[in-house]
Amino acid sequence: MSSSTSPALSVPSVDGGVLEGKNDDHGGVIVEMTNEPLDPVVYVSLLKASLSHWEQQGKRGIWIKIPIELANLVEPTVKEGFYFHHAEPKYLMLARWLPSTPNTLPANASHRVGIGAFVLNEKNEVLVVQEKSGKFRGTGVWKFPTGVVDEGEDICDAAVREVKEETGIDSKFLEILAFRQSHQSYFEKSDLFFVCMMQPLSEDIQPQEAEIEAAQWMPLKNIKPFVRNRNFLYNFDACLAKKGDLSGF
Amino acid sequence: MSSSTSPALSVPSVDGGVLEGKNDDHGGVIVEMTNEPLDPVVYVSLLKASLSHWEQQGKRGIWIKIPIELANLVEPTVKEGFYFHHAEPKYLMLARWLPSTPNTLPANASHRVGIGAFVLNEKNEVLVVQEKSGKFRGTGVWKFPTGVVDEGEDICDAAVREVKEETGIDSKFLEILAFRQSHQSYFEKSDLFFVCMMQPLSEDIQPQEAEIEAAQWMPLKNIKPFVRNRNFLYNFDACLAKKGDLSGF
Repeated sequence: MSSSTSPALSVPSVDGGVLEGKNDDHGGVIVEMTNEPLDPVVYVSLLKASLSHWEQQGKRGIWIKIPIELANLVEPTVKEGFYFHHAEPKYLMLARWLPSTPNTLPANASHRVGIGAFVLNEKNEVLVVQEKSGKFRGTGVWKFPTGVVDEGEDICDAAVREVKEETGIDSKFLEILAFRQSHQSYFEKSDLFFVCMMQPLSEDIQPQEAEIEAAQWMPLKNIKPFVRNRNFLYNFDACLAKKGDLSGF
Repeated sequence: MSSSTSPALSVPSVDGGVLEGKNDDHGGVIVEMTNEPLDPVVYVSLLKASLSHWEQQGKRGIWIKIPIELANLVEPTVKEGFYFHHAEPKYLMLARWLPSTPNTLPANASHRVGIGAFVLNEKNEVLVVQEKSGKFRGTGVWKFPTGVVDEGEDICDAAVREVKEETGIDSKFLEILAFRQSHQSYFEKSDLFFVCMMQPLSEDIQPQEAEIEAAQWMPLKNIKPFVRNRNFLYNFDACLAKKGDLSGF
């Protein structure tokens, strides 16, 4: 708590001259900095004292979560031996491994998860879209509605949501037909893509203004030839095979 | 290129007074800063000029990748309207959406992917381990070898690697028996966990010193009762059902 160069600033998350943290289940400590401004000189002093304290206690992994409002504390944290672990729009998580043994802290999230929706109606028509952006923009390629599963969202809910957003169609998730893992898809991350069998609960299409160029119900027999050759729908045979098994069609 | 306060520092990634970037497929620009030191004042001047330039060009998403060695540039980048997109140990990626339309930049990776290995030998014994850390430490609970799929690693390769690392056993991936999605597993991220059917290719167990307390071949009939009730192996019935189908056992 010494040498504050700016006494007007509050000093949050402080307990007895060290940063206040919570113990985790793996012998480590998690410090969540609040949004309140903190003088970097005060912070560095606290951090140094905290690291000594945690080392004496035999702590292992130290996590410091810095909100974007305190971006000025990122550099001093790195200078104390921390590395970037993961980030979200509002914060950066830094980590440091204290013991001399190998670092066993878990890796950052490594995969994005996507869905493709195979929506087949009772007339044997499949719901297909043309996208306004991405690599198929302007190519005339029709594809299944697809999208990214949000953090904390179930795969089946994401399929229902994407079909509704892109086409206005209500649908019900039936099952997962196939999935695929791919790598280096975007900034070196990996992808898992699940093809979901969906039952439509409405008919009238309302294409999404921002992202969808066109959407339609296309006879199954028409889309088969050219979709079959596209890697992102390599599992079309599985969809067709499944069709025979589903009651209600 | 004006107003350098430190002429000794080099000015990398500069092209005609703006930061040098690559166009992406979505109307955006990706700037990868090199590790070379850059005076923050020079950087801010370049960044401001670049943003004007990109706005005139109608660019959409702007990405700036800052290596950890240049952590001093994080704060000035945030001050120019950027947010944290994702981070890896060696860099932080910041993003800013220039148009007045809603931000459509893709989300950060949202899922960690894990594997559990169901390794069953010809004597109807299953390979099980006790872990030295984590929530089962000291509980005497035996479990399948499990682990995290690395970025860029195939699920089947991860299963072979984890079995080898934890027990010394060579094995061959046969198929995926079941998977489970869970949320809020670690720092708000989601998990996908795949149970892999593995064929052992060796017999002698060498438990991993750092992480494994004990490992053994356990008769299938012994582990069934208590494993069945554990959520992380809820798919044990699937494993048992599958066992009858597999040739070679």
